[in-house]
Amino acid sequence: MPACANGAPGGIATCVQAAESAMRGAMTAQVINLRSRETQPSLAPMLALTAAGMNSVNSVILDRMQSEIPLIPALAGHLISGGGKRMRPMLTVAAAELCGYQGTRHHKLAAAVEFIHTATLLHDDVVDGSDLRRGKAAANIVFGNPATVLVGDFLFTRAFELMVEDGSLRVLKILSKASSIIAEGEVDQLTAQRKIETSEEHYLQIIGSKTAALFAAATRIAAVVAEKSEAEEQALDAYGRNLGIAFQLVDDAIDYDSEAAESGKDKGDDFREGKMTLPVILAYARGTEEERKFWQEAIAGFRTEDEDLAHAVELINRHKCVEATRERARHFAQRAIDSIAGFPSGEARNAMAEAVEFAVARRY
Amino acid sequence: MPACANGAPGGIATCVQAAESAMRGAMTAQVINLRSRETQPSLAPMLALTAAGMNSVNSVILDRMQSEIPLIPALAGHLISGGGKRMRPMLTVAAAELCGYQGTRHHKLAAAVEFIHTATLLHDDVVDGSDLRRGKAAANIVFGNPATVLVGDFLFTRAFELMVEDGSLRVLKILSKASSIIAEGEVDQLTAQRKIETSEEHYLQIIGSKTAALFAAATRIAAVVAEKSEAEEQALDAYGRNLGIAFQLVDDAIDYDSEAAESGKDKGDDFREGKMTLPVILAYARGTEEERKFWQEAIAGFRTEDEDLAHAVELINRHKCVEATRERARHFAQRAIDSIAGFPSGEARNAMAEAVEFAVARRY
Repeated sequence: MPACANGAPGGIATCVQAAESAMRGAMTAQVINLRSRETQPSLAPMLALTAAGMNSVNSVILDRMQSEIPLIPALAGHLISGGGKRMRPMLTVAAAELCGYQGTRHHKLAAAVEFIHTATLLHDDVVDGSDLRRGKAAANIVFGNPATVLVGDFLFTRAFELMVEDGSLRVLKILSKASSIIAEGEVDQLTAQRKIETSEEHYLQIIGSKTAALFAAATRIAAVVAEKSEAEEQALDAYGRNLGIAFQLVDDAIDYDSEAAESGKDKGDDFREGKMTLPVILAYARGTEEERKFWQEAIAGFRTEDEDLAHAVELINRHKCVEATRERARHFAQRAIDSIAGFPSGEARNAMAEAVEFAVARRY
Repeated sequence: MPACANGAPGGIATCVQAAESAMRGAMTAQVINLRSRETQPSLAPMLALTAAGMNSVNSVILDRMQSEIPLIPALAGHLISGGGKRMRPMLTVAAAELCGYQGTRHHKLAAAVEFIHTATLLHDDVVDGSDLRRGKAAANIVFGNPATVLVGDFLFTRAFELMVEDGSLRVLKILSKASSIIAEGEVDQLTAQRKIETSEEHYLQIIGSKTAALFAAATRIAAVVAEKSEAEEQALDAYGRNLGIAFQLVDDAIDYDSEAAESGKDKGDDFREGKMTLPVILAYARGTEEERKFWQEAIAGFRTEDEDLAHAVELINRHKCVEATRERARHFAQRAIDSIAGFPSGEARNAMAEAVEFAVARRY
């Protein structure tokens, strides 16, 4: 929509609304390409595929979060043992299976990926002033901001130590670049916070950096250790990147989904923090003048009561923005699935495809 | 003093006092080994030695702190352009001169070292809730804690990108290990905060990690790029490490030195934050029962008024703890100077020796 890019605010909104409407048709058409199934998609095949590998990865994680400074394993363990899904290292292990890789180098690298992720979660919790993470008190609440910042730093340095031990400059390049992009994305998100004029394009750029870059790196490095071709590296990068975007979109949808189960974090956190996520961006674009006034006030931080959150959820429902966000997620999910079509069919590819379907179908 | 290590508190103190007294004699003897000179030691030879190299390093720093997210260069620039001495990259450049290195690889690596340092300063300011840094408002005061944490992360990732671009796994190992040790040291210091029982041994371990590890890495990597022997690497590591300890000791002394000029940070910050630095450790060890009671209350955070700080400075003066801390610093300074005795004499070695003398003689 380049013609919209420099229009006046009203012009952009109208233009976006028209484009949205057109897109909804297109997206619905795409969604039927997602494998139709009689049962709900499940993570079980992915868990089975990666069980042995994840045992080794978990050993590395537990071993390398140790330190003679007792606060470090205590704080790191609070989060690492705290019910995380270890989705990113699991993707590295799965992608290694897809590549037919027989070695063990990816175990350390998958642990490094999880450490980078854990470091960003710890810093996120400080940045957002979170109360809950994975359904329990966030590390910053239990251990305070200073320790949480510093242990995040520690895990980040440990991640680099693990990569350096592996010794592949190509892997180091992929993961240091991804880390840099994540940090940029986090700052970008902070800048967009409480800015109602944030566009869907800008939002996609933010989640492409802060979430999808690490997913992409996690799967791509498996192709590197398996010494696969550049095309296969690119394919696994695309798989991880599109899955990461889809995953984040669904996460953002769930925060406003009145039918979704409780998530690990506080329901309505995004709303109270004035985070511009896609459900809000769409509700604002599709809203009446009066509704837009509400959103302007809410995102600016002047409407933080429970009744305001309830009204926000109502507006988002009225314009079907949770469902629209999920439709967008299915678009990227489909791209993720299609990106690995060139790999041999079999257990690994099926599990990776079904994991994508699971990521977008989940209600929690 | 192994006989003291497991004694009762009173026993330790007496033992330490005796040892201190014996040590003061020994230290004075060592101090005369520091080059005697008619003029005060100066940084001028070091600045002259590294001027050309630092021009290149500064270009890399300015170039690589850029980002499309405007907040990143704004915040990073606040600190980086804010009067920092760039001591660590300067040491890399000087050490490269000492090794007779003719290439330019160390410019990027020196910039990486400065980025790691800057990242830790940004996070330190958040951790300490600092008001001032280098004589002006700290980044966390101007930009807030969230942005300061995230831009610190960004600079840290940029440091790794620079190292990966250089491509030396040996350098990557040295700097990732140093970064991990720094993070551990920061957590260790946080754990020791407000703990009056922190020993001199523990304090030396903390500053060895949080300060000296990066000095050691900064000088050591010059030997790596210059393809010098393991012995020369070790020598430059020892130079940086001992200088780093000496430098931190003098910094800690200045915070209680009634005769020192104003430093860039708030005078008495260490006191109010309950940081256990050597002047306090010594004043506590050498103090009467009544004085110890004061220190226990002060370090626990119950004495934070200006008159309390004045009393603390008076007690530290009474037991000559600033001077004792400076004597300890001179010990490590001497070791730094002696460690590079095996390198050819000349401009580089002289400048590096005088820089060490300057570091311990300075009053600001």
